[in-house]
Amino acid sequence: MNRQQLIEQIQNKQSYLCVGLDTDINKIPKHLLKEPNPVFAFNKAIIEATHDLCVSYKINTAFYEALGLQGWEAMEKTVKYMGKDHFTIADAKRADIANTSSQYAKAFFETLPFDAITVAPYMGEDSVKPFLTYENKWAIVLGLTSNKGAADFELQEMVSVDTNHGNGVGEDTKHIGGRLYEKVLQTVATWGTINNLMFVIGATQADEFINIRKMLPDHFFLVPGVGTQGGSLKEISEKAMNKEIGLLVNVSRAVIYASDTTNFAEAARLAAQEYQKEMSVYLK
Amino acid sequence: MNRQQLIEQIQNKQSYLCVGLDTDINKIPKHLLKEPNPVFAFNKAIIEATHDLCVSYKINTAFYEALGLQGWEAMEKTVKYMGKDHFTIADAKRADIANTSSQYAKAFFETLPFDAITVAPYMGEDSVKPFLTYENKWAIVLGLTSNKGAADFELQEMVSVDTNHGNGVGEDTKHIGGRLYEKVLQTVATWGTINNLMFVIGATQADEFINIRKMLPDHFFLVPGVGTQGGSLKEISEKAMNKEIGLLVNVSRAVIYASDTTNFAEAARLAAQEYQKEMSVYLK
Repeated sequence: MNRQQLIEQIQNKQSYLCVGLDTDINKIPKHLLKEPNPVFAFNKAIIEATHDLCVSYKINTAFYEALGLQGWEAMEKTVKYMGKDHFTIADAKRADIANTSSQYAKAFFETLPFDAITVAPYMGEDSVKPFLTYENKWAIVLGLTSNKGAADFELQEMVSVDTNHGNGVGEDTKHIGGRLYEKVLQTVATWGTINNLMFVIGATQADEFINIRKMLPDHFFLVPGVGTQGGSLKEISEKAMNKEIGLLVNVSRAVIYASDTTNFAEAARLAAQEYQKEMSVYLK
Repeated sequence: MNRQQLIEQIQNKQSYLCVGLDTDINKIPKHLLKEPNPVFAFNKAIIEATHDLCVSYKINTAFYEALGLQGWEAMEKTVKYMGKDHFTIADAKRADIANTSSQYAKAFFETLPFDAITVAPYMGEDSVKPFLTYENKWAIVLGLTSNKGAADFELQEMVSVDTNHGNGVGEDTKHIGGRLYEKVLQTVATWGTINNLMFVIGATQADEFINIRKMLPDHFFLVPGVGTQGGSLKEISEKAMNKEIGLLVNVSRAVIYASDTTNFAEAARLAAQEYQKEMSVYLK
């Protein structure tokens, strides 16, 4: 899916909701356990119940890998079931040396038909670039994440260097620059375009949103952390929406586990509907 | 496998070689393609030919995921075939919020019986800790990687803060501290012990090895980048071996693709033997 198609989906549905399928076999309603593939049966029912309310689905690969082969099969069936009208994200947080990142790109863009994959930036340019070589496919690189551990490295301050090589006079001067996540956003943004690159910005980091939007006025942000993690949809929408919306807000547990009864899908629909309604207000 | 068992394996075999199974179905000998699972058939032959020469095998998950279900099945069969006498590593570079990292730990430590998994540090403490809660299992956290992109963030300088909160007088003072990877090594080392935590240090970063060993005198390092990537086994062994060895040196392509004929396994054995012989010299 390309940028224009994504924006059209958002406008048509009046929603920038991404439903996160962090499907844990221990949390799905018990009556599904008799299905041949319970995780897929759950996902299928959630997708049927929410497809007109969200523009994107995000599969959290960890929950599928924890089940081994059966989990990988559920992932494959689920992404194929999603079809082409939703922006499909493999929340996989991959990245390795170039030779290996190319294999991850193949896994999620060719073997599986995802539109996007989340990517960890630590290893630098050659670890990210292989995800940016596919037409209408996206790398969603970790910027500032929603968890407490974001403080350990992402929010730490970096040294900036002003090189004086240009005029050949004097030494490089160093001063306190931005924080690691800011350096990541600014640097990674030069490796791709607004048509193949998004960033993960956690909803719990609302204080940083105005600063981040100033730094990257045009990129889409994938925003996890609304719902169970406590981020505010209102605050991030007010602070970070741009003229082409520029936001995909993910909700996982608060939608998919809205109920653990046989009515789980209807409950998920009602939860998704609340988010969609609220989003339609901010879209005006 | 625990630390003592690993050290005993190294001493018995006079080898600290890890053979990296970056098995690419497009690079294995053509006659294997008629096997029910060609990747597993290749790995099995490589393991049979090298098991007495190496102490560890490392599966690069990307190459398996690129094949979808059949690849995941090859990974499962391979790690089970390795048995308990080798230190088995899932080179998966995972990490996410705590709730999700727990699922990755389950995937690679319970569903699959790996001894260790490589972990990306960007998201901080709660993303790494779930991998440190299993007895005799290991997190191998990225420190300084072997690729060119290491310069983008890992080698960038950080600001250090001296807090004056202790005496209540004066403000915090900031100065230029170490580089990001040094902060990662020092910080992550406090989250685990030398019995459940190792670090990835690329062999192409030999200039940094003395500094790194000074910082972390006792930890094991997993060192990729020897062979195709050009790192020197001699240099890293001289600079970073400690009294309990403290090194696992990985070679992937230069061993497993030593030949693409029907004699590929014997060729891999000869390549592994060269590394083992050289290692036995440094172990004296």
